[in-house]
Amino acid sequence: MNQSTEDTVTVSVGLGERAYDILIGAGLLARAGAEIAARLPGARAAVVTDENVAALHLRPLQEGLGAAGIGSTAITLPPGERSKSFGALEETVDGILGARLERRDFVIALGGGVVGDLAGFAAGIVRRGMNFVQVPTSLLAQVDSSVGGKTGINTGHGKNLIGVFHQPRLVLADTAALGTLPEREFRAGYAEVAKYGLIDRPDFFAWLENNWRDVFSGGTACTEAIARSCRAKAEIVERDERESGERALLNLGHTFGHALEAATGYDSARLVHGEGVAIGMVLAHRFSARVNLASPDDADRVEAHLRAVGLPTRLEHIPGALPDAEALLSYIAQDKKVSRGALTFILTHGIGRSFIAEDVPASEVLAFLRECQTQ
Amino acid sequence: MNQSTEDTVTVSVGLGERAYDILIGAGLLARAGAEIAARLPGARAAVVTDENVAALHLRPLQEGLGAAGIGSTAITLPPGERSKSFGALEETVDGILGARLERRDFVIALGGGVVGDLAGFAAGIVRRGMNFVQVPTSLLAQVDSSVGGKTGINTGHGKNLIGVFHQPRLVLADTAALGTLPEREFRAGYAEVAKYGLIDRPDFFAWLENNWRDVFSGGTACTEAIARSCRAKAEIVERDERESGERALLNLGHTFGHALEAATGYDSARLVHGEGVAIGMVLAHRFSARVNLASPDDADRVEAHLRAVGLPTRLEHIPGALPDAEALLSYIAQDKKVSRGALTFILTHGIGRSFIAEDVPASEVLAFLRECQTQ
Ligand SMILES: NC(=O)c1ccc[n+]([C@@H]2O[C@H](COP(=O)([O-])OP(=O)(O)OC[C@H]3O[C@@H](n4cnc5c(N)ncnc54)[C@H](O)[C@@H]3O)[C@@H](O)[C@H]2O)c1
Ligand SMILES: NC(=O)c1ccc[n+]([C@@H]2O[C@H](COP(=O)([O-])OP(=O)(O)OC[C@H]3O[C@@H](n4cnc5c(N)ncnc54)[C@H](O)[C@@H]3O)[C@@H](O)[C@H]2O)c1
Ligand SMILES: [Zn+2]
Ligand SMILES: [Zn+2]
Repeated sequence: MNQSTEDTVTVSVGLGERAYDILIGAGLLARAGAEIAARLPGARAAVVTDENVAALHLRPLQEGLGAAGIGSTAITLPPGERSKSFGALEETVDGILGARLERRDFVIALGGGVVGDLAGFAAGIVRRGMNFVQVPTSLLAQVDSSVGGKTGINTGHGKNLIGVFHQPRLVLADTAALGTLPEREFRAGYAEVAKYGLIDRPDFFAWLENNWRDVFSGGTACTEAIARSCRAKAEIVERDERESGERALLNLGHTFGHALEAATGYDSARLVHGEGVAIGMVLAHRFSARVNLASPDDADRVEAHLRAVGLPTRLEHIPGALPDAEALLSYIAQDKKVSRGALTFILTHGIGRSFIAEDVPASEVLAFLRECQTQ
Repeated sequence: MNQSTEDTVTVSVGLGERAYDILIGAGLLARAGAEIAARLPGARAAVVTDENVAALHLRPLQEGLGAAGIGSTAITLPPGERSKSFGALEETVDGILGARLERRDFVIALGGGVVGDLAGFAAGIVRRGMNFVQVPTSLLAQVDSSVGGKTGINTGHGKNLIGVFHQPRLVLADTAALGTLPEREFRAGYAEVAKYGLIDRPDFFAWLENNWRDVFSGGTACTEAIARSCRAKAEIVERDERESGERALLNLGHTFGHALEAATGYDSARLVHGEGVAIGMVLAHRFSARVNLASPDDADRVEAHLRAVGLPTRLEHIPGALPDAEALLSYIAQDKKVSRGALTFILTHGIGRSFIAEDVPASEVLAFLRECQTQ
């Protein structure tokens, strides 16, 4: 929250020659053309989006771009995690090249994390790197995926295993766009907001416990929660841009979460990413308590808060049958946070005191998962 | 040529934390395991290669790796430019992930520039960047494509339009492997050797005019030509790793060359990359003379030398019919060295005096191509 103009808050990501601003506030979508033209004069754009978001927000964006003299082409993909695929990547790249964009032109991601990850990857590889602007429209994308430059797609071997680091030149988080976001998606994004408190900001977690209703109703508390989240992520990314260490903390809840997403076949009717993270964070706290790293009271407090906002917190909250503990463990071992066969997890000493635990014995995890499933 | 042990010459590429060595000499393939184990202890490997090279050189490499305690999996693709595709990329990535390699493991490219560009791209995107080792087996790959970290694939929109910069950790250029390279491929690679003289090393070009027969018979003159080429390329890459300026000089002959490759449908029976570059370099010198930038004598000298070694130097040397000048120009405009609609070419003031020319009028190029076709 470095500066604030009217209701727009700016968070700066300090990455040297790759530094950029995140603007957060209502109405940024329509102003995107002006903000971009000020930074990338004379450039043209390809807007990558999904069908849901296109129907709601593509026109105001393209009109604003046009008013600022920026010609644009839209590339619209089916919504959902399945668009993070080689096929969709090829389609996106082809659309960008077909629009004859050059390296100084730019790619805009208009949508949630799926569109952001896919479009960012495409921007990172077309002509070995084009300018990229994030216009995140889901809460998850505004607080997490649009910040930090991780891009990628999924393969049969697991989530986000293929991609590049490619920082955006600008992030425009229009809080008004969240007005059309389904409640369930807003809640899922909220799991990542809470994550920052649980990683290393206990005060922020306490603030959320007291103010979550205001965050959910939009307005200044919502803008504040987004800005505090972006700042939390930016600080970690500034210290470890390419995840050689500390950045892995952002995966709190994600090792379990990704395994659950894989186990439910990335079927958003059953589980969306943030819901997997919510369950995963509770499991990470429970597991930490089980191996005597943290007090079970902390796990209870995390679960109570996530449950209060309406998030799932246990395996049994996922509709439909789950594979058994052995199968869940094999999804975990497949995940990228595996090193030399030993399991790496983000565990915790308590709320706001998470850490990277290497060499977590698979047998302990298996026993724990068995307990979770028979509760 | 920083140091020389017995017959192995080392060229160091000074790129700060991405610095690496290029070792050049006979027998490096069998020693690759030892050289790699010294630099990347405890890692496992995926060897990406093509069917031709696999039949000749895969076994000694894998045996050498095994002897050094490095387990490896081979991923073998069909030979030829068509393997620089999304489909082959997906297959390669899938093979690497299927071998359960982690970020600290590494990918080896064993083969020519096609395998190097494809495997390097795959290594650059799996887990957002894995270790990568180049074991180039064609002359072109030893002097050019294995150095400098450019990787990529082709699309319907043009050559090498998709890719990343991903530097290798080590390059092992076994000059003995060139013994099995078809004569035509050796000659094609020689075009890139001559290119370094034409860019900014007139003495090297003169040396080649006198010594090319020795270069073609292998032995120390061949090692020397490779090492001087690698040093020439390394110096340009050190000054401009990501091609924001000077590195574009390496594209001398390539704007025309790529258009000819596209116009012949990447059919290696008609034209291989280095042959396209040979013709392209002559055309760049002729065009420079036509617009009074250089003396026609220089173009004659370039053509005489390339013809002496047996390379094609004119459009009419390409077997089969070519599209007309307009169509060739549209392939050129498609190429990535296009900026705001104006054509960017590498032109020259004479041998060893090339430069980046922006805003070359398309009409001049068109008139020139028409003349070339009616000669
Ligand atoms: N790159 C990173 O650092 C990072 C970090 C966290 C998550 N992610 C990735 O983000 C993805 C999840 O992001 P997500 O939750 O935004 O998913 P998403 O992009 O699928 O969006 C969720 C749903 O909301 C819809 N939607 C988005 N904005 C809307 C709006 N304003 N109004 C109405 N509908 C809207 C979408 O069409 C979609 O159906 C996952 O693929 C995850 O791996 C990436
Ligand atoms: N990345 C870069 O900086 C860069 C620079 C220049 C060229 N390139 C790329 O390099 C490619 C051309 O490279 P290339 O000419 O090596 O093509 P290539 O990889 O197709 O190899 C040429 C042929 O020689 C065969 N071959 C290779 N080594 C052999 C050996 N030792 N014995 C027998 N056969 C062998 C291959 O199987 C193939 O049939 C093009 O795709 C071009 O775009 C990239
Ligand atoms: Zn997440
Ligand atoms: Zn070349």
